[in-house]
Amino acid sequence: MEQRTGAPRIKDIANACGVSISTVSNVLNGKSNKVSEEIAKKIRDEVERTGYRPSSLARNLRATSTKTIGVIAEDLIEFSTPAIVEGIMKSCEEKGYNVVIENMRLFGRWQREWLRDEAQLNKTLSDVLPKMDSLNLDGLIYVGSHEHTVHNLVSARGLPIVMAYAVAVDRQIPTFRLDDITGGYDVIKYLVSKGHRKIGVLAGEIDNTHTINRILGVQKAMFEEKIFFDPALVKYNDWTKDGGYKGMNALLDEDITAVFCMSDMIASGAYAALLEKGIMPGKDISVMGYDNQDTSRTLTPELTTMALPLQEIGSGAAKALIGLLENPDSSPVDIADIRIKSALIERASVRAI
Amino acid sequence: MEQRTGAPRIKDIANACGVSISTVSNVLNGKSNKVSEEIAKKIRDEVERTGYRPSSLARNLRATSTKTIGVIAEDLIEFSTPAIVEGIMKSCEEKGYNVVIENMRLFGRWQREWLRDEAQLNKTLSDVLPKMDSLNLDGLIYVGSHEHTVHNLVSARGLPIVMAYAVAVDRQIPTFRLDDITGGYDVIKYLVSKGHRKIGVLAGEIDNTHTINRILGVQKAMFEEKIFFDPALVKYNDWTKDGGYKGMNALLDEDITAVFCMSDMIASGAYAALLEKGIMPGKDISVMGYDNQDTSRTLTPELTTMALPLQEIGSGAAKALIGLLENPDSSPVDIADIRIKSALIERASVRAI
Repeated sequence: MEQRTGAPRIKDIANACGVSISTVSNVLNGKSNKVSEEIAKKIRDEVERTGYRPSSLARNLRATSTKTIGVIAEDLIEFSTPAIVEGIMKSCEEKGYNVVIENMRLFGRWQREWLRDEAQLNKTLSDVLPKMDSLNLDGLIYVGSHEHTVHNLVSARGLPIVMAYAVAVDRQIPTFRLDDITGGYDVIKYLVSKGHRKIGVLAGEIDNTHTINRILGVQKAMFEEKIFFDPALVKYNDWTKDGGYKGMNALLDEDITAVFCMSDMIASGAYAALLEKGIMPGKDISVMGYDNQDTSRTLTPELTTMALPLQEIGSGAAKALIGLLENPDSSPVDIADIRIKSALIERASVRAI
Repeated sequence: MEQRTGAPRIKDIANACGVSISTVSNVLNGKSNKVSEEIAKKIRDEVERTGYRPSSLARNLRATSTKTIGVIAEDLIEFSTPAIVEGIMKSCEEKGYNVVIENMRLFGRWQREWLRDEAQLNKTLSDVLPKMDSLNLDGLIYVGSHEHTVHNLVSARGLPIVMAYAVAVDRQIPTFRLDDITGGYDVIKYLVSKGHRKIGVLAGEIDNTHTINRILGVQKAMFEEKIFFDPALVKYNDWTKDGGYKGMNALLDEDITAVFCMSDMIASGAYAALLEKGIMPGKDISVMGYDNQDTSRTLTPELTTMALPLQEIGSGAAKALIGLLENPDSSPVDIADIRIKSALIERASVRAI
């Protein structure tokens, strides 16, 4: 098989790292225990930087397709994951593909620690990827538990990879994720359409991608509606009920008619803080949630919220991967980065004023 | 390898069904498309009836252990499943075993239809079991989405199987499940300890195993406490918010001080019905939930409920299976049927009177 001119070869990687070809091969085949972690990292970094793919291997593989796709989930316990996996499996079934699921249990193993320390993710990935490579798979889908960038995502066998709900640092790997900018934008446009112009925001962590993008959408909508964006009305905490409770209490003295909570859990905390003061959500103040978790329906009044397109993200990723597998001329770059919108679910917690 | 006297042999199955040994072998190896469904069923029934195990195969397998366990989940979308899988994987990791997960997507494929028509489960199982047998596994754990009896659960390769949250018709297969009788009993004892004696019950479907067992516990506790069990105070609906809303409305004219809701979702419907009439849960009437789902914490007031021991069920099943694999003299019959208690979580929805 011919190598395209300009495409990096295993020899280039070996030269750049000052090691032998067999050392590169060992690392890419998951036999990194024969190599120091420092060297292994250097090689993986170089593979990422150059976009090297053991393409002849990959082509061989496609010739002997097993019609099986591997799913690597960061954690099945995260509420969003089973719905994404359902979307993947539904589309795979329709196209005649089997699915093998690997659950990395990142929260189960390290609670929320790994969110701040990528070493734990990398350690797990460096076990999981060779394991997936040893199964006879056609391709991989990586399912994030929230949107963040994953480094070190390289299949030694050159399996095509598609991301769902997370992003790979390697931009050759296509991504299906939430359109959070439009989400934040749609929430504010909706509240404004109901007459609200003094709007508080209870956000997640200030450096979280979902928070940042939803705030960008909020700002865009406010600018269009000629509403001054007041940072004092935005309270950053976390995604939990406690975060919402704290945030709502910090907004009680502000002159707002509506509050946009960036998760249903946050909204449940806002409800608790409001009810404690005898303020009725949906009557005295409008409350908007995000996620459409069970909780949004069990609150009284039922919460108006944004339904995450989780099954669509899974299904989009599966169809894209199968497209790459079945059309040898297609390129991951053509898919690139797909953002899918959330749908507004109108219930009883926002009233027109 | 020697066959124990009295243990059924493949020849016995063949004779009893009037077919050849190779036909039995085909069916047990998942090649049932070569055999009529009628014959295949006859063979599987006979295998179950006699408890036949291709034991030499199984012993061979143990000799070449891959330290990998297969998990067959009825549906990852069901709220209880990821926590059970987490318990399984945690224990497997501790013991040095890998886990392969198969998701049958029964709700995803047939919504709630399959609950009333086992044909759909059997059809899926007859695809999944040969697939699991073709992987190089040491044993299987079957994870139910609710407690019910599974027929046709036979590994052709004689892999040991353990049930989590469901029961096999073959009593040689050990089971780890909820202790629902003690759960119902503990709820009533707790409410009585808070001074309640006029207690309503909002139950799931009348023929559901969880409903039946929790009612048995309720009756036992009431008998001990010298409270007449009044069937008029028990409303059977389903496990949803709507079921609870309907049930609570049907109890509004009854002279009760507390209501036991058999799920947190049911309790959320009871809250909605009560709040609509200006009746405050936890103040004017005590409400008890079950399951300890997220919803129990996001309701205001927070719901006193029973925490399902989901991780413990998964972990118990995994440890039992690994015990069977590593101790050749142990028998599944010694494990038999383990029921694990739910823990009472006191919050703010029950008050002493």
